[in-house]
Amino acid sequence: MKKFAVVMAGCGVFDGAEIHEATLTLLAIAQQGAHYEIFAPDVSQHHVINHYTHKEMPEKRNVLVESARIARGQIKPLSQFRAGDFDAIIFPGGFGAAKNLSTVAFDGANAKVNPDVESAVKAMHKAGKPIGALCITPTIIARILGNIEVTIGDDPGTIATIEKMGGKHIKTTHGEVVVDKKNNVFTTPCYMLDATIVQIYEGAMNVVGEMMKTAGL
Amino acid sequence: MKKFAVVMAGCGVFDGAEIHEATLTLLAIAQQGAHYEIFAPDVSQHHVINHYTHKEMPEKRNVLVESARIARGQIKPLSQFRAGDFDAIIFPGGFGAAKNLSTVAFDGANAKVNPDVESAVKAMHKAGKPIGALCITPTIIARILGNIEVTIGDDPGTIATIEKMGGKHIKTTHGEVVVDKKNNVFTTPCYMLDATIVQIYEGAMNVVGEMMKTAGL
Repeated sequence: MKKFAVVMAGCGVFDGAEIHEATLTLLAIAQQGAHYEIFAPDVSQHHVINHYTHKEMPEKRNVLVESARIARGQIKPLSQFRAGDFDAIIFPGGFGAAKNLSTVAFDGANAKVNPDVESAVKAMHKAGKPIGALCITPTIIARILGNIEVTIGDDPGTIATIEKMGGKHIKTTHGEVVVDKKNNVFTTPCYMLDATIVQIYEGAMNVVGEMMKTAGL
Repeated sequence: MKKFAVVMAGCGVFDGAEIHEATLTLLAIAQQGAHYEIFAPDVSQHHVINHYTHKEMPEKRNVLVESARIARGQIKPLSQFRAGDFDAIIFPGGFGAAKNLSTVAFDGANAKVNPDVESAVKAMHKAGKPIGALCITPTIIARILGNIEVTIGDDPGTIATIEKMGGKHIKTTHGEVVVDKKNNVFTTPCYMLDATIVQIYEGAMNVVGEMMKTAGL
């Protein structure tokens, strides 16, 4: 059975992993006959957002600890990820990816990337293994790998950021997947578009399906 | 378009709503052509559990605020729920249902139920509208309505609790739904069994499907 590593950025769209994208990525992997293990970096969240009022809360939370909510406790620190143990790696979206896994939300094309995320992506890329990225996370992959072909949907600001990073952007709509065959990078817009949960499920199914098909998993 | 109210108990299996059950309930409703609105009581969580270490954390969190993470901010206090506005109500599971929506985790058959939860269930029952309950939440419905037919899978302790409440328990396995036609109550075990995420999706699809079919929605 093929094995995916799923990397999460917390728990909640505004300061962590987007919960629907994360859950439906797990479902898409399991429904298509593969296995998953979940990882997150053991670092503090950039901040905590009250998802009811949308205001910042005077709290501190940890990315690994909060991601464990989506993982039902079955999660490891990303520092323990070994590319040799996995056939593929995939990143669900959410603002946490742009705040905790990287500083894309603040620094755009000059973003710093969490060192464990950078190591994991570089190791999988070097091994020629597929890398999947939903929603905003293609920006992280572009920041690490530079000249790759990705999609985040159609947001002009984010497209400009990707192009400044050296990436090539392809506009897409709901459920579409951009496949960079040379780099084995697979991306889909999900909630970067104004989407329904049904469209998120289609996006997750399609990107995982393309990874398995194109990469011969 | 038929409208479901979905009632959440926080965000995370050990102290709130079970995230996969909650997300896949939303997906199941939307995929089957209905609409949903999300509610949670505006009360403090019983406690906060670190989902990585499984230990209690010295923090306070609010059930409505944390549920808003799963709802992407689109949520209302359960006190604003009006039975006349909805065709059905459904409760995803998670320990939060037994700790925040009720005291089933501590008081078993003598559990107290959050007054907004009790009012919502009684109003829907009185109106003859379908009530769905996943995982541990059939205990809450049994505590409120008494003599109903439900399933939580096959856990002997929880079955005994339901019977002490005056309910009748039917043993089930993955994805099966118990339909109490007289009371319009629909239940399925989900993570009360040792389930995969694919089985949770099947359970959510089946319980929502039965609600729509049996209740003529």
